[in-house]
Amino acid sequence: MDERVREHAEVLVDWSARVEAGDNVVLSVGPDAHELAVAVAECLGERRANLLSTYSSGEITRAYLRAHNGDFDANPAHELALVEQADVYLSLGGGRNTSATADVPGKRRQAYNSARAGIRERRLDTRWVSTVHPTRSLAQQANMAYEAYQEFAYDAILRDWGSLAKEMARVKELLDEGSEVRLVSTNTDLTMRIDGRTAVNSAASVAYDSHNLPSGEVFTAPYATEGEVTFDVPMTLHGEAVRNVRLEFDSGEVVEYDADQGVDVIAEIIDADDGARRLGELGIGMNRGIDRYTDNILFDEKMGETVHLALGRAYDANLPEDESGNESAVHVDMITDVSEESRLEVDGTVVQRNGRFRWEDGFE
Amino acid sequence: MDERVREHAEVLVDWSARVEAGDNVVLSVGPDAHELAVAVAECLGERRANLLSTYSSGEITRAYLRAHNGDFDANPAHELALVEQADVYLSLGGGRNTSATADVPGKRRQAYNSARAGIRERRLDTRWVSTVHPTRSLAQQANMAYEAYQEFAYDAILRDWGSLAKEMARVKELLDEGSEVRLVSTNTDLTMRIDGRTAVNSAASVAYDSHNLPSGEVFTAPYATEGEVTFDVPMTLHGEAVRNVRLEFDSGEVVEYDADQGVDVIAEIIDADDGARRLGELGIGMNRGIDRYTDNILFDEKMGETVHLALGRAYDANLPEDESGNESAVHVDMITDVSEESRLEVDGTVVQRNGRFRWEDGFE
Repeated sequence: MDERVREHAEVLVDWSARVEAGDNVVLSVGPDAHELAVAVAECLGERRANLLSTYSSGEITRAYLRAHNGDFDANPAHELALVEQADVYLSLGGGRNTSATADVPGKRRQAYNSARAGIRERRLDTRWVSTVHPTRSLAQQANMAYEAYQEFAYDAILRDWGSLAKEMARVKELLDEGSEVRLVSTNTDLTMRIDGRTAVNSAASVAYDSHNLPSGEVFTAPYATEGEVTFDVPMTLHGEAVRNVRLEFDSGEVVEYDADQGVDVIAEIIDADDGARRLGELGIGMNRGIDRYTDNILFDEKMGETVHLALGRAYDANLPEDESGNESAVHVDMITDVSEESRLEVDGTVVQRNGRFRWEDGFE
Repeated sequence: MDERVREHAEVLVDWSARVEAGDNVVLSVGPDAHELAVAVAECLGERRANLLSTYSSGEITRAYLRAHNGDFDANPAHELALVEQADVYLSLGGGRNTSATADVPGKRRQAYNSARAGIRERRLDTRWVSTVHPTRSLAQQANMAYEAYQEFAYDAILRDWGSLAKEMARVKELLDEGSEVRLVSTNTDLTMRIDGRTAVNSAASVAYDSHNLPSGEVFTAPYATEGEVTFDVPMTLHGEAVRNVRLEFDSGEVVEYDADQGVDVIAEIIDADDGARRLGELGIGMNRGIDRYTDNILFDEKMGETVHLALGRAYDANLPEDESGNESAVHVDMITDVSEESRLEVDGTVVQRNGRFRWEDGFE
C-alpha cells in the first residue's frame, strides 16, 4: 500500500477525529475509497475502536431516488439509531463518476434530504470528519493526470497541522478582536461587520470545531455587508460552469448580480429564500499545500491566498450560544484570488496584502 | 445493466425478503456486488422501503482484526441499534478474493464473533436473506470462466420458486410424518431418527423460514444416528481441501472418522465440542438449476440429487417451540451425491432412488 494512504488514515483517525478505545465509529466508504478504508480500519483496530462500515455510492442513491415516488419516510429508525449511537462519523469520499447523480430531479433529492434532516443533525453531534480518497474521477474533474492529482491531494492533506493551527490562531485572534473587515481587490471593495462573532480556526480537527480534511482556513459569519465583490476563481455549481460572479450589497443584501457565465445558477441560488441574499460565511484560505483550483470546494476554499464568501446559512460555531445567524436552506461558497493587487483590512489595519500576512516575509 | 441482475434483485426483494413500503432495510454490499446493489436499490425505491447500505469487505475486516489486540467490546451500541431497528437485512456477497481473510488468526476471528453474538441474534430476528453476486473471484473458486459462472449462478437463482416450493412441500410432508430416515449409497448406510422434528421447505423466502438465495432444499434435525456415511463431494473447509470424508456413528455420536484428504480439519471440527460429534442437520438438495459443484456451500448443498449432513448445531426451525436440539459452536455441512446406486427411505418406504423421487419420471 502507498505509504501516503496510511499517513492519510493516521491523520484522519488521530489528528482529525481524535479516536479513542471504545469509540463507536461509522466509516462511510465511497466505491473507490476502498484502499483508504482498509488503512483506516487498521488504525481503528490498533486503537480498539468499534468499526461499522457503510457504503456511500452515487449510483445506488441515483437508482433509489429515481425509482422512489418522492414520498419519503421521515428519519428512518434504523439509520437514526445508528448515528445516535455513533461517537465518530468518518466520511471517505471517492466515487467513479462525480456526475453519478446528475439525472436525479432536484426536487426528489430535496425531498429526500428534507425527510432526513433529523439524521443529519444527529450526525453533526458526532465527531464527524469528511475527507476524500484521491480517485481517478476527482483527477478528471481537476483536469489532472491521476498521479499528479495524488501528489496534489496528499500535499493538501499531509500538512503539519499543529504548526498551521498556530498560524491560523493569529488570524482568528485578529477577527475575534475586530469589528469590521474590508476586502479590496480587482473589481472588489466590500465591508462586513464581524463584531460579536467568533472565528473558527479550521485546522482539520474536531478539537478545533473543524470537520474537513484537508482544511486550513479561518472563517467567521459576517453581516451588514456593503459594496461589491467579484469571484474570479472558476467553479461548477449545480452541475454548471460559473465564471466571474459579481455581487453588489446594500444593507447586508444582494441588490445586483451578474456573471460572465452561469448567471442563471446564481439567480436560482439568490432566489432560494431570504437568507440566500445575505452572507453566511467569510473564509480566509491558508492551506499553501493547495496550489491550484481543482473544482472541488473541499480543496479550493482552503487554498492559501484566497478568500471565500458564502451566500446563505451561517455556522453555529461562529455565533454566540443564544443567537442564530443568517438562516437559509443554501450555503454556496464562492472564491476570490487575493494573491495580487489585493488587501484585507480589519478595523482599518491591513492584515494581508497580495496574499501575505503582516507577519510573513514579503509583506510590505 | 444485464437483465439477469435486475431479475435477481426482484426475486431477492419480492420473493425472498417480502419487502413492503416503510420497511427499514439494511443492504450489506460486498466490494464486487455493487451492480446488484444498484439493482436492489432501484427495487427498494419502487417499493418505498428505507435503504441504508453497509459495506462488507474481507480486506477491511482483515486489516481491523489483525491490528486489534483481540479484546473486543461486546455488541457495540451503534451496530446493535442498527439491526434492532431493521426490518429486513439483505446480504449481497461478492468480493475480489475469497481468501481475503486467510491470514487472520482463528482465535482473533472467534473472539470477534463471540463478542458480537448479540448483534448476530438480533439480525436473525429480521427478515434476513443472504445471496451472492456472481463475481470473478467466485468463478475462480469454482474453476470456471466468468461468463460460464454467471450462467451457472443465474440458473440457480432465477428459478420458478413457487413451483419448486410445491414440489419440496411433498418431501417436507414425508419427513414430518416419518420417524426414521435411512440413506443407502456407496460406502453409506445410515439411519437417523426424525420423529418430533419439523422439516423446513427452504424455498428461498422468509415466508418459508428460508434465508438463502439460491436455496432449494428440505432440511430437518436428525438424532440417534447409527451407521456409516461417505461424503464424496469435494469441498474446502477452513481453507483446506477435504475429500471423501467417512464417518461412523454409534448412538448418535461419531465413533470413527477418516478422509482421503483433510482428515486433520475433520478432527479439529469433531473436537470443537460435544455437539460437534452429533448431527445437526439432514438436508435434501432439490435445486436442479445447480448442475455442478463450485466449492461454495450456498450452492453445493442445494444441488438436486445430493444429500447433506451437518455436524454441530441444529436450527430452531426444526424443533418444537420448547425444545433445544443439538448445540454446538460449529455447523459444518458435508455432501454426498445420491444420483447413482443410492436410495433414501422414510420408515422403510423408498422415497428417492438414484436421485429420482417416487413421483418423478424415471423412478423405478
